[in-house]
Amino acid sequence: MTDIATLGEFGLIRRLTEKLPTVNASTIVGVGDDAAVLAYGDKRTLVTSDMLLEGIHFDLVYTPLRHLGYKAAVVNFSDIYAMNGTPRQLLVNIGVGRRFSVEHLDEIYDGLRLACERYGVDLVGGDTSSSLTGLTLSLTCIGEADANDVVRRNGAQETDLICVSGDLGAAYMGLQLLEREKAVFANTEQNEMAAQPDFSGREYLLERFLKPEARRDVVAQLRTADIRPTSMIDVSDGLSSELLHLCTQSGVGCRIYEERLPIDYLTALTAEEFNMNLSTCALNGGEDYELLFTVPLTAHEKISQLEGIKEIGYITKASLGCALIGRGDAEEIPLRAQGWVHLENQD
Amino acid sequence: MTDIATLGEFGLIRRLTEKLPTVNASTIVGVGDDAAVLAYGDKRTLVTSDMLLEGIHFDLVYTPLRHLGYKAAVVNFSDIYAMNGTPRQLLVNIGVGRRFSVEHLDEIYDGLRLACERYGVDLVGGDTSSSLTGLTLSLTCIGEADANDVVRRNGAQETDLICVSGDLGAAYMGLQLLEREKAVFANTEQNEMAAQPDFSGREYLLERFLKPEARRDVVAQLRTADIRPTSMIDVSDGLSSELLHLCTQSGVGCRIYEERLPIDYLTALTAEEFNMNLSTCALNGGEDYELLFTVPLTAHEKISQLEGIKEIGYITKASLGCALIGRGDAEEIPLRAQGWVHLENQD
Repeated sequence: MTDIATLGEFGLIRRLTEKLPTVNASTIVGVGDDAAVLAYGDKRTLVTSDMLLEGIHFDLVYTPLRHLGYKAAVVNFSDIYAMNGTPRQLLVNIGVGRRFSVEHLDEIYDGLRLACERYGVDLVGGDTSSSLTGLTLSLTCIGEADANDVVRRNGAQETDLICVSGDLGAAYMGLQLLEREKAVFANTEQNEMAAQPDFSGREYLLERFLKPEARRDVVAQLRTADIRPTSMIDVSDGLSSELLHLCTQSGVGCRIYEERLPIDYLTALTAEEFNMNLSTCALNGGEDYELLFTVPLTAHEKISQLEGIKEIGYITKASLGCALIGRGDAEEIPLRAQGWVHLENQD
Repeated sequence: MTDIATLGEFGLIRRLTEKLPTVNASTIVGVGDDAAVLAYGDKRTLVTSDMLLEGIHFDLVYTPLRHLGYKAAVVNFSDIYAMNGTPRQLLVNIGVGRRFSVEHLDEIYDGLRLACERYGVDLVGGDTSSSLTGLTLSLTCIGEADANDVVRRNGAQETDLICVSGDLGAAYMGLQLLEREKAVFANTEQNEMAAQPDFSGREYLLERFLKPEARRDVVAQLRTADIRPTSMIDVSDGLSSELLHLCTQSGVGCRIYEERLPIDYLTALTAEEFNMNLSTCALNGGEDYELLFTVPLTAHEKISQLEGIKEIGYITKASLGCALIGRGDAEEIPLRAQGWVHLENQD
């Protein structure tokens, strides 16, 4: 018997999906991108699905149910935006144990509804069932795009510029803050509990983790500027991991500059406080839901005029591999996939 | 706080989904049918999603993983057929605990692949994640149909005939057999374990429960005979429950005849052995995945020529309610929804 952790997330997915031929003319892209691409009519239909399990993907000690519902929806929308599409419909399956009441489910749905409202998505179905254990959410989002607009992971070309929206590592630092407070809380006697945890000034980090947004605005910005990315992916597992996906699927290599990684001041401050390497946080933190994409070198001028988008490096030929160039061009550090830390850390 | 069980499955779903407006032109039907109906291009896109949780929907003591994968796929296909559509794509999310190995996942995928192959469906995506507890499967199926072909739950008209395919209650009796053997097994000392449980002659019942098929053939039969059902649903929760869905959503009542319920000889034999009321098994057993549908009275002649389809009653005006007419026209028994026994029985 093979322990699942030995294969890692991506090894496992490869193994499970390698024998999957497609037979329907309407199936354009199957397994292996942010979303499947289907052809129903002139437009492309995009479909993505995600599962969130209590104790693995979220900890109810510090995750308000409303935020959980909101985030579960948004991370699925993010996958559709990462294909350069527009999310349209959402299906939600929920498994709940006995310790959950109807009001708990209402809260989750409040969050789901809010997200749907903000992003113009229709909640069209799903399944609610009891569970013997914790809370399980499994969502499917359907979106659309013109056939020529769909951006996949496999289109990056040598000399393309690598761009990323927003900033990285903040969600991860938000998680660290929450975990620290949880530990403090667990070690505090009932009668000495002074006050609520003090996160003041760090709300940005918490929000990045608990209530992220999908970068619909970035997709719109690019469209307005008439820039069509050659490849795109959303940053859910961490920059390194996503960049390796783009490069592997495009058959190319890359160089990114450590000094160009977009990092918020609060992220830097908190990483220092936790004695963590800041670049590692930005490279492997995950859950930022920013968009990572490549554009032709000729788009440099246009990109540099867009706010909140940073060029962090360039695509090379595959033989050069994927590496981070340290500050001051000091050294090249090979990029490593992190992904699915859940499985490896679990005991 | 409200205990979820007090609302029941359908009450809960109503509560959670009552505030769900739709904003996209492509959303034709949202929550409340076997599948959502979307308009991408000329055809209709159908989407359905289902979640299966260990200990609630399946018991791994007697469920081979290959069968589990097969069944999980087929029950989703069944929802698409119940809309008079054709399933085309499948997305699969799996949560697995540490006691599962890669080989276990391979077995589940073997079953999924076999079902996809048989039904001509493409497995196009999904998510595999670790779980702190049992096994969780959440599947989404996408299908298509011509706009005029989509059959919903809300089209039944007064005087329509009520038809059902195949036979009912067999899956439920299969489950009883498996549960009995499990109990025997649990009470047997290691050293007196004589042999494998003896199911010989009852394989049909086990297969109905462990490896059901979706009634693609019935949908094809009806199309060939040029019969378009006025309403249709698949029998997953039990005949009573499904019939009440059709009637409620169509705003009608119904009468069905106890003596016309289609029941296999083995189901009858086993129900007697278990001292269970046979009609109750057929009405509330569930998991048969047969198709329940209504047709205009004028289709009677055509229907009677089709094999494996039985007329079991007729649609009335709403004020007459929904009832079963006992053998020999003896009495009228109001139909009751069973549905989601999982939640109510759970402790």
